[in-house]
Amino acid sequence: MESCECKCTKECVFVPYLPLNKPEKYASLSKVFKMSKMARLLKDIEPSQRQVYVDSICFEAEARLRDPVWGCVGIIRDLKLQLEILKRELKKKRMALEEIQRSIILRARF
Amino acid sequence: MESCECKCTKECVFVPYLPLNKPEKYASLSKVFKMSKMARLLKDIEPSQRQVYVDSICFEAEARLRDPVWGCVGIIRDLKLQLEILKRELKKKRMALEEIQRSIILRARF
Repeated sequence: MESCECKCTKECVFVPYLPLNKPEKYASLSKVFKMSKMARLLKDIEPSQRQVYVDSICFEAEARLRDPVWGCVGIIRDLKLQLEILKRELKKKRMALEEIQRSIILRARF
Repeated sequence: MESCECKCTKECVFVPYLPLNKPEKYASLSKVFKMSKMARLLKDIEPSQRQVYVDSICFEAEARLRDPVWGCVGIIRDLKLQLEILKRELKKKRMALEEIQRSIILRARF
């Protein structure tokens, strides 16, 4: 859609899903994404999911402009790292609890 | 860069960072992103970080084509959910261990 390559107009398919008082959201979108493709995707997505779609591409565009090297993938990298740390901690706690249970069973036997 | 809007050519700034035997990677990129902006970002990023940058935009583009509604943000949503589950589990284990420690202290006193 040609209108989507420039500033928001009433004809733009994104208008219903973007806050009118935040033109910078559309600006971020159009800086990062190929808006003709994004508009085509919007039309193919069922109406109940369109707001989620627009919010997610806005989030992605803002992440890319904030962190050009990593963008959203940097958030994924950080979350995976946090998950690894938590998994290791959880494993330690589980082992500590198992150890205590074993010693309780042993004590009960003798 | 005009050449970046179509198929990869020797002049394209992305050539050194994309596997030549995987033209679909560039195809995904150019379907989703505004390649003129992506090429400008590439030039502004220091050389040691450019491969990370290209890998991250490829990952993002592929995620968007695979899951048009959520894209990369769906991965972030799932990871955050996993983190919440692990945090709750960890909290339970910590409380269980604290409870055991309290009962050991109490038993030692009497």
